[in-house]
Amino acid sequence: MSRGFNFSAGPAVLPEPVLRELREVLLEFGDARAGLMEISHRSAAFEAVIASAEARLRRVLGVPAEHKVGFFQGGATQQFAMHALNLARPGEAADYVITGTWAEGAHKEAKKALDAGVCWTSAPAGHTHTPQPGEPLDVRASAKFLHYTTNNTVYGTQCPAAPEVGVPLVADMSSDIGSRPLDVGRHALIYAGAQKNLGPSGVTIAILSPWAMEQSAACAKARGGLPVVMDYKAQIDKGSMYNTPNTWGIFVLERVLAWMEAEGGLATFSAKNRARAARLYAALDASAFWRPHARPDSRSDMNVTFRIHDPSLEGAFVAEAEAAGLLSLAGHRSVGGMRASLYNALPDAAVDALIAFMAEFEARRG
Amino acid sequence: MSRGFNFSAGPAVLPEPVLRELREVLLEFGDARAGLMEISHRSAAFEAVIASAEARLRRVLGVPAEHKVGFFQGGATQQFAMHALNLARPGEAADYVITGTWAEGAHKEAKKALDAGVCWTSAPAGHTHTPQPGEPLDVRASAKFLHYTTNNTVYGTQCPAAPEVGVPLVADMSSDIGSRPLDVGRHALIYAGAQKNLGPSGVTIAILSPWAMEQSAACAKARGGLPVVMDYKAQIDKGSMYNTPNTWGIFVLERVLAWMEAEGGLATFSAKNRARAARLYAALDASAFWRPHARPDSRSDMNVTFRIHDPSLEGAFVAEAEAAGLLSLAGHRSVGGMRASLYNALPDAAVDALIAFMAEFEARRG
Repeated sequence: MSRGFNFSAGPAVLPEPVLRELREVLLEFGDARAGLMEISHRSAAFEAVIASAEARLRRVLGVPAEHKVGFFQGGATQQFAMHALNLARPGEAADYVITGTWAEGAHKEAKKALDAGVCWTSAPAGHTHTPQPGEPLDVRASAKFLHYTTNNTVYGTQCPAAPEVGVPLVADMSSDIGSRPLDVGRHALIYAGAQKNLGPSGVTIAILSPWAMEQSAACAKARGGLPVVMDYKAQIDKGSMYNTPNTWGIFVLERVLAWMEAEGGLATFSAKNRARAARLYAALDASAFWRPHARPDSRSDMNVTFRIHDPSLEGAFVAEAEAAGLLSLAGHRSVGGMRASLYNALPDAAVDALIAFMAEFEARRG
Repeated sequence: MSRGFNFSAGPAVLPEPVLRELREVLLEFGDARAGLMEISHRSAAFEAVIASAEARLRRVLGVPAEHKVGFFQGGATQQFAMHALNLARPGEAADYVITGTWAEGAHKEAKKALDAGVCWTSAPAGHTHTPQPGEPLDVRASAKFLHYTTNNTVYGTQCPAAPEVGVPLVADMSSDIGSRPLDVGRHALIYAGAQKNLGPSGVTIAILSPWAMEQSAACAKARGGLPVVMDYKAQIDKGSMYNTPNTWGIFVLERVLAWMEAEGGLATFSAKNRARAARLYAALDASAFWRPHARPDSRSDMNVTFRIHDPSLEGAFVAEAEAAGLLSLAGHRSVGGMRASLYNALPDAAVDALIAFMAEFEARRG
């Protein structure tokens, strides 16, 4: 066998040079005389790993010095609850932009903790689009923050820009963090599961503004104390090592960030991601055989979702693509169809191979 | 360099054959044409991994069919909060056996969620011992459960047996699970971070009785809903895949369990662990040069804690041992001294080498 072109939506393709490095640390990490997974999280060797992970994340994403960075477990689903518990007191309001499955997940979890409103939703249109720049969002004056999802993995839509509103912004960036420049300073809280662009599953990053850190302390107190694993300030004040973190996951994250820096950082990835997504969308637009899902102004560079005009051909498309080494092109189980996830670590050649396969499939079955 | 003898308290030594296997799955896992960390948690390949991890855990630990198994993130620290939120309603009582740092951690987190009492503590004696078989525990009639810690990593004590009380038992077995036979059926809930005997950090197992599953549903409801990552029943009903789990960590756990089965299971490890801990305690008892911490009836087979009669020699002992390839013998930062952790994957030769080094050190510095 050999490695295929991996279009998985997450856990997702990782940079091959990083995977080769990882082979070398399993039995012996540096001069530790033990493997990476076998050393104490309090060892100098691991302290250097987590410090480097934070420093690289700050450089790659451009995190302002006054913002704090934390590493968590539990994925975005934990953050769905955690942001609400930490940024508002019981009964306080916050508003949610509903652009798909994960935004709904955040809203559902938040409702257990606060007065969670919906200020915008694409549900009536089948989640084909996101808010556009300048589009008004009906945010309540009482809202402590606005939560939105920058990229919608299931539906293949992506917000062109951060909303312009008068309240603090909270963003789930799980599926597009690290893929394009972002203005961290405009956000009170950014969170992201690592398992798309940044590493393996089991590690989640969070970036908090000074306001968010203050809220965390005040809201935890107002709630009679939060479980310490759900308390941003308690965790970040301990350098994300209140208790044993996922040491392997943080190491892989650190190595992926090193690879991103060596490749040129967000400017490089943004240009590459934009160009190849555009090639794939052009192929989808070129024939009525294909039915791209997202509205053109809301198309994601990360997850390209599409159908075939005759849906009965979709099973054959996915199976034949898989056999041809184009892996994991089935759409999310909740929507069907196809989804090609084009994360940073995917080689350009994968997108070209997919476009060629699509042309061949259409010629044969069209 | 080469691998030393790794006495780390956790993350800890893993079986070398497992580490060698892991090298082979980073770039390509089976016929997936992608590495283990790069495949969807919903793929058939990963579904087989998590199913095998549960099946092996059930066989190795002897989990009754009616008990449920779940895989979580967040370590024992998450369980410190989670068991309390799921097994009691606000204001209901539970009692805690305080045998050291982690028991105190569980009690502290539980106090945020329920009326958490202390029914037994070794604090006045400096945590030198645990409850002994037949020793009465002052459990309140109102207590919904009794929480205890089977093995105390920091102090090097271990409960000889499960407490005999009239209420459901909840046990933190993080640092001795898999090291000796246990009666799962006597426990309402067993939880354990994997990073001692079972795998890497970032994976936690929980085993729940039918009563505990019912309580989880009822108490989550009584609390107005729990964050889904903190809800046993919500997670277990989804096969520990409500959201993306730590796929790498679960795979490593599955491989360690396979190695344990091949080695003969708990009977083998129990005999081995008991015998080599006894050799080390005999060496400590043989000379007034050494000061073992735990009371003989409460000594741990997993973590052997000791001092030198002249504490000013301890720094040299740890440093010289490290130079000789006997790694991570410093005691927990909260207590100092020395700690030798003797988890399943540590070779017997490591204990023999430590005993020989101690004799040589004593001859030279005694």
